[in-house]
Amino acid sequence: MAAEGKDVILVRTETSPEDIGGMAVAKGVVTCRGGMTSHAAVVARGMGCPCVSGAGDIRINEPKRFLEVNGTKLSEGDFISIDGFTGEVYGAKIPVRASEIVQVLNGAMKESESILYRDYKSFMGFVQDLKEMGVYTNADTPHDAQMAVAFGAEGIGLCRTEHMFFGGDRIMSIRKMILANNIVEREKALAELLPMQRSDFEEIFLALDGRPATIRLLDPPLHEFLPNDHTSRHELALQMGITVEEVAQKSSALHEFNPMLGFRGCRLAIIYPEILRMQVRAIIEAALNVKRKGVEVLPEIMIPLVGNYKEFVFTKKHALEVIETIFSEQSLKVHYKIGTMIEVPRAAITADEIAKEAAFFSFGTNDLTQLACGFSRDDAASFLGAYVNDADKQFYEYDPFATLDVNGVGKLVEMAVKLGRSANPSIKLGICGEHGGDPKTIAFCNKVGLDYVSCSPFRVPIARLAAAQAVIEARKNA
Amino acid sequence: MAAEGKDVILVRTETSPEDIGGMAVAKGVVTCRGGMTSHAAVVARGMGCPCVSGAGDIRINEPKRFLEVNGTKLSEGDFISIDGFTGEVYGAKIPVRASEIVQVLNGAMKESESILYRDYKSFMGFVQDLKEMGVYTNADTPHDAQMAVAFGAEGIGLCRTEHMFFGGDRIMSIRKMILANNIVEREKALAELLPMQRSDFEEIFLALDGRPATIRLLDPPLHEFLPNDHTSRHELALQMGITVEEVAQKSSALHEFNPMLGFRGCRLAIIYPEILRMQVRAIIEAALNVKRKGVEVLPEIMIPLVGNYKEFVFTKKHALEVIETIFSEQSLKVHYKIGTMIEVPRAAITADEIAKEAAFFSFGTNDLTQLACGFSRDDAASFLGAYVNDADKQFYEYDPFATLDVNGVGKLVEMAVKLGRSANPSIKLGICGEHGGDPKTIAFCNKVGLDYVSCSPFRVPIARLAAAQAVIEARKNA
Repeated sequence: MAAEGKDVILVRTETSPEDIGGMAVAKGVVTCRGGMTSHAAVVARGMGCPCVSGAGDIRINEPKRFLEVNGTKLSEGDFISIDGFTGEVYGAKIPVRASEIVQVLNGAMKESESILYRDYKSFMGFVQDLKEMGVYTNADTPHDAQMAVAFGAEGIGLCRTEHMFFGGDRIMSIRKMILANNIVEREKALAELLPMQRSDFEEIFLALDGRPATIRLLDPPLHEFLPNDHTSRHELALQMGITVEEVAQKSSALHEFNPMLGFRGCRLAIIYPEILRMQVRAIIEAALNVKRKGVEVLPEIMIPLVGNYKEFVFTKKHALEVIETIFSEQSLKVHYKIGTMIEVPRAAITADEIAKEAAFFSFGTNDLTQLACGFSRDDAASFLGAYVNDADKQFYEYDPFATLDVNGVGKLVEMAVKLGRSANPSIKLGICGEHGGDPKTIAFCNKVGLDYVSCSPFRVPIARLAAAQAVIEARKNA
Repeated sequence: MAAEGKDVILVRTETSPEDIGGMAVAKGVVTCRGGMTSHAAVVARGMGCPCVSGAGDIRINEPKRFLEVNGTKLSEGDFISIDGFTGEVYGAKIPVRASEIVQVLNGAMKESESILYRDYKSFMGFVQDLKEMGVYTNADTPHDAQMAVAFGAEGIGLCRTEHMFFGGDRIMSIRKMILANNIVEREKALAELLPMQRSDFEEIFLALDGRPATIRLLDPPLHEFLPNDHTSRHELALQMGITVEEVAQKSSALHEFNPMLGFRGCRLAIIYPEILRMQVRAIIEAALNVKRKGVEVLPEIMIPLVGNYKEFVFTKKHALEVIETIFSEQSLKVHYKIGTMIEVPRAAITADEIAKEAAFFSFGTNDLTQLACGFSRDDAASFLGAYVNDADKQFYEYDPFATLDVNGVGKLVEMAVKLGRSANPSIKLGICGEHGGDPKTIAFCNKVGLDYVSCSPFRVPIARLAAAQAVIEARKNA
């Protein structure tokens, strides 16, 4: 229906990376499972797309294309409206419009026509003068980056390269890379991806116009990229000249009991350094191309899921080799940084060892919360609501995936800040988990001395305000 | 074949809790996936059953009941022999015999007939005099407990109550409990389990003869107890008077993306306190019954997977209510302790808060390693071997699931010991992960001041020796 140019709301039991295409064209997303940090919520937020996740009463009949909720049946083509702030879903068409501020930023309204926008602008001027931390954005596309910059973002704190792998022909190349039987086949598939990644990064660097861009290398488990249905497997087998059984067998070999605790993050780059080498090449070649156009670039290469400083040393060595080769090939250099996410508890408690080698830390507080507390954001629904809300429990004051658990996970962050700065006083410290857009967490980040927070584009104005308020609060208490 | 009285070696791609019955009658276990802390290895070790896990070259054809390995085909009924120490699998029958020491302890040989046994006994006398830490055992059955005591175990450090749920009628009762629609149905199913659990505990207490017994409350995700195949689902539906679809639907509702990070441990007892209340009743009633027979008992109730002291306070409150009720019903009391596993990083870093309420900590270093490092023992095969063994990596000196990662996970243990003792100087501290039987880890435990280590029955003599060696080593360095 979206292909026919109609406005569509995507309703799914839950979303997976394969839904990215559908989400990109949807005007809203509803999922039956998940919470505010589920895949659907995180991706939709990044896209500025309204999303209601965890609407547990909805039952979807996918083959027959209808849903039922408390006795009401709605079929494909019926109207629904959603409110991403309140989580309400209406079985009717409700008139909506973009806020004036977004309309001005989008160019749909002139600045001179909107008093609201002019007030916003002057208020954000005070905010900018007061705040001390930088406010970056989590953006995976040039469009997101542009939007965030319009909202006042001072850089990209998290660019997830894997989201770039789902469009058009790319998914086929990444699947070939995953199913490769040897390094030759793998490098051939990677060579197909290189120009696509490079042009993505060029556009992002241009959109940032000299602001720093923290780019995370490939992070998710590889099976997330493989097709689950027979039709897609058949198509993949045809294209690769192998049998459907081989595709199924390789997919099954990649199956994991706990994908969150499996073969992902820098582990991919360590077992297959050629993946990292392609990505680093794409980043640095893009940076040089943009620099040649006279636009400043500041790439910051981020290694995900490091738990042991030796993992960082290993991946950094490969990255440096590639970078030096390109500098010498092109007789041109750019400034860059190589740093790491701090999202594994072991990394936080050995942060001094890592800081000796890393130019920056970015706290990946989604994963850090999951691992420190031992519950995943996707699987905690059966108890975490009761933990926060039940009158006889209240174990956590807020949802720990929305507001950082300062008394627990926060201790790990403080420890890593202290250990990191003790070993490397000039280390740059930030946060790129979903918490980076939460005002209470931003106050904590200001208190422990982070250099910046990073959040979804549409949360940037609130984050800037919260950063300013944190400074005022700190002065009052001083 | 085992039912015909033949000696059988169980060969499986991997084992799950449903295989416990098969493992109990097998003379050996081989799995294609997994490592030394996989389900197969842990359970087999506890049973004193030789096991080779992670024999990745074996391909099993289950329907046709044969296996293939490097071109050799072996069918059900063919002989194989295995060496659990070296991991070798032989496609032939090789003569085996129990060690003399085991033969004497089993009563198959007289003490007077074995010089080896008498040497062992006098040597272990020196060991006993030297060592300072207690050596407990991980035992889930009276037989394991007896064996461990014969090897010199001074108590049970980990009794996993869930393994008791798989035998005979019990699995049906636990399934009814899981599929219950409300608390009435759930309590009815629990009432069926109560006498079975109580009699298990009585036998274990009798086997321990006054030694402490640390009993862990229900820990694994509930879906581990549900049948996966259609036949068993059908049988369950029939017995419960519901449809197969309802069974399938409820099983599917319990599905988790990352079961290790889901609804398990004390989270079960917090959402369904009636489960905890049944288990505590079974433990305490068993203890009183055994006390009445004139045998001393020391039950230690262990709450698993605590991450927040408020979880501990909540579960302890329920346990105390049940205990006080039983004491008053029976006008008899026993000494008992209520403590917790330390296996969630958040628990280690907030150990002072927990120690104010807990009588003991037992470090569950399997889970603590998984969460601190962010990799699970079941899913790490694709990279952890390379991390330890590859000449260009060597990120960890030893497999961190076999020998405690002293530089990372060990820091969390030290932190928890220090914080725990600072808040509660009389707290009892031990370790019950697989690491508790590893000599290098035992030296670390001695150094940080644990009161005891706990390991599989057949590792008890080695653990006692290692505990004595650690003392000698510490004196040399003093």
